[in-house]
Amino acid sequence: MTARAHVLANGLTVAVQPMAGVETMAVGLYADVGARSEPGGLSGLAHMVEHMLFKGAGSRDAKAIAEDIEDVGGSLNAWTARDHTVFHARMLAGDMALGVEMIADLVRAPHLDADELVREKDVVLAELGEARDTPDDIIFDQLQAAAFTDQPLGQAVLGDEASIAAIDVDALRAWTATQYRPAGLVLAAAGKVDEAALLKLAEARFGDMAAASPPPPASARFIGGRHHDKRRFDQLHVALAHPGTGHGDPAHHALSLFASAAGGGMSSRLFQQVREARGLAYSIYAWTQAYADTGLFGVYCAASRAQAGEALALTRAILDETAEGLTDAELARAKVQAKAGLLMGLEGVGASCDHLARQLQIHGRIVPPAETVASIEAVSLDQARAAGQAALAGGEALATIGGKLAKAA
Amino acid sequence: MTARAHVLANGLTVAVQPMAGVETMAVGLYADVGARSEPGGLSGLAHMVEHMLFKGAGSRDAKAIAEDIEDVGGSLNAWTARDHTVFHARMLAGDMALGVEMIADLVRAPHLDADELVREKDVVLAELGEARDTPDDIIFDQLQAAAFTDQPLGQAVLGDEASIAAIDVDALRAWTATQYRPAGLVLAAAGKVDEAALLKLAEARFGDMAAASPPPPASARFIGGRHHDKRRFDQLHVALAHPGTGHGDPAHHALSLFASAAGGGMSSRLFQQVREARGLAYSIYAWTQAYADTGLFGVYCAASRAQAGEALALTRAILDETAEGLTDAELARAKVQAKAGLLMGLEGVGASCDHLARQLQIHGRIVPPAETVASIEAVSLDQARAAGQAALAGGEALATIGGKLAKAA
Repeated sequence: MTARAHVLANGLTVAVQPMAGVETMAVGLYADVGARSEPGGLSGLAHMVEHMLFKGAGSRDAKAIAEDIEDVGGSLNAWTARDHTVFHARMLAGDMALGVEMIADLVRAPHLDADELVREKDVVLAELGEARDTPDDIIFDQLQAAAFTDQPLGQAVLGDEASIAAIDVDALRAWTATQYRPAGLVLAAAGKVDEAALLKLAEARFGDMAAASPPPPASARFIGGRHHDKRRFDQLHVALAHPGTGHGDPAHHALSLFASAAGGGMSSRLFQQVREARGLAYSIYAWTQAYADTGLFGVYCAASRAQAGEALALTRAILDETAEGLTDAELARAKVQAKAGLLMGLEGVGASCDHLARQLQIHGRIVPPAETVASIEAVSLDQARAAGQAALAGGEALATIGGKLAKAA
Repeated sequence: MTARAHVLANGLTVAVQPMAGVETMAVGLYADVGARSEPGGLSGLAHMVEHMLFKGAGSRDAKAIAEDIEDVGGSLNAWTARDHTVFHARMLAGDMALGVEMIADLVRAPHLDADELVREKDVVLAELGEARDTPDDIIFDQLQAAAFTDQPLGQAVLGDEASIAAIDVDALRAWTATQYRPAGLVLAAAGKVDEAALLKLAEARFGDMAAASPPPPASARFIGGRHHDKRRFDQLHVALAHPGTGHGDPAHHALSLFASAAGGGMSSRLFQQVREARGLAYSIYAWTQAYADTGLFGVYCAASRAQAGEALALTRAILDETAEGLTDAELARAKVQAKAGLLMGLEGVGASCDHLARQLQIHGRIVPPAETVASIEAVSLDQARAAGQAALAGGEALATIGGKLAKAA
């Protein structure tokens, strides 16, 4: 079933992905701003705003927000990334109006109470503590800081103790007033959705927002370098990154396919050589992360302290070899995996909603699956190798937690 | 679309959940045995077998297993629980025969090579290290050990250094020969599935297995007590458990609804009081875990070392209050959430396959959604309170990691 998008007079996009054979739906408001748009000294502001909106909005306090959505068997959730923020409801098809109303209240009529902020800072500090207690979570913040040193894109979404302490109600209000603007918002729905009803709801709840765009974030530049977290853990966790492709980069699919062949699945070189043939690690995989203007290609690995140096040296060698010697068979397998993954991803209600909204945020339009498949198919062996070579030649960021690398790695 | 089950002459069950609007499918072999069936001294055996099957089976070595499934854009995965083990393939509808063939080879024709076992032990030790580096993962193993002290059900799925060292190829062979028996196996498929083709494949790949049942595991008894992991983390992680209901227990839905009202969502008492009103924790939730003969009801919470004692005392008080004073409104909300959750869970291909197979393992038949809904509806306020009271009166297991509790909690 075909996805469709509409733009309200004020610039807000409304999009629908109808799905057969389901009785439920997902609706989300996707804001094109996140942690990388935060003012200096206020790292964690976007995430704190996300938390604070749930403490009261419109006619509801925190308890009523929770009860009203859960009374109909639905759920209301939110997440903050470096370049977007999402407010998301999952519910039975008949409850769409409630979901849209609640999301609109969160973003447009939050209470932002000062006493609630004091308490919620404790909750966010506990969340930060939990992240620090999870090496394979916090290491990606440390890697990001090494990759984009001293830039907003290098800051952690959660912030730190000092920046969280510095957030006040005025900062929250300034954020909601300047960052949630119609031209930067997509209201997307997937599942059993009545398109006309959604459009009517969108007009009623968002149509009177003044037309405006959120301020663009500062562009970012890959720097690279090292971050070592001295705490001792059972395993030595290692994450490395090289500069990758941004969303609009013509080499974007080529780099994704390179990453897949290097370390995307059980048949990848990293899995086969580091884990299967040598038994050096349980977790080893390559990944890519794209932003509007830049991106990362990287690898995560956890190994014993005695073997992590060897695992890292082998990882680097495998990446170099793959960039030089990627084969036709490997590229073909990566393409098939990418195409099947696209299809499987589109079969879930929540995932379809995300996919639809992110396409509109990234490309400004709904890209038909056939067009994405054609773009994947069009990548040549030379292009995939070149994308890997360009990433590897662009410098390295390295983060380690859990112990010192035994070798000069 | 209606799910259907068939039983082969040797006792193996084949089940199908056809789904509209999808082009992919999932197929899994669900074995009714897991870590609780392991012989003394060999904790981790079921999980090690699961790993070793991927090192070579039938005509394929580890690399060919990975490549053959990923060449068609599919994936092959497995997981081991305390009371079941799953071998699972996700793929395009046209590749079902390959998925069933590969799963059959894993279970029926594994190579179980001694040299590969040496290497794979290193991989499993790294997996164990990663689990230990994740307090909110390992704490549940420690809680299980406190709940079912010195019993097979109290042992960790991964095992420990000593028990992993003790596993040899003979133990692997004995496991596959005695535990994977037709009467304990369900081959389930969901998505775009040709039922007749699946039945034919099942007969061809599994029909010649000799009829037999796996040996039943020893029954378990809740003991309770404390486990304290002395390592220091940022947060103090706390998990507590009380005896819960087994799969066939008439109070099973009543306890699940009690757990939902106490700590199942944003509107639950634990979330509202511990997090929203007091800011004592970021993560706080209640859960239930059922086995054939017994189960657990519990709560997980992470809080700062200074506040964890208070959070635990408040948690215990809230559980007591909920068991005494659960309201009609809370029970009604828990019921709506359970019903909507059931519906949403059945809309995903992988989740539908799991749901179908687990019903057949647990109840020996496919329970129609309407029957589950009726069972949920039938729970009275008194029954839900009584289920909570019975759990709380049955003793307590407590696990802590990250620091000492400040109060005499």
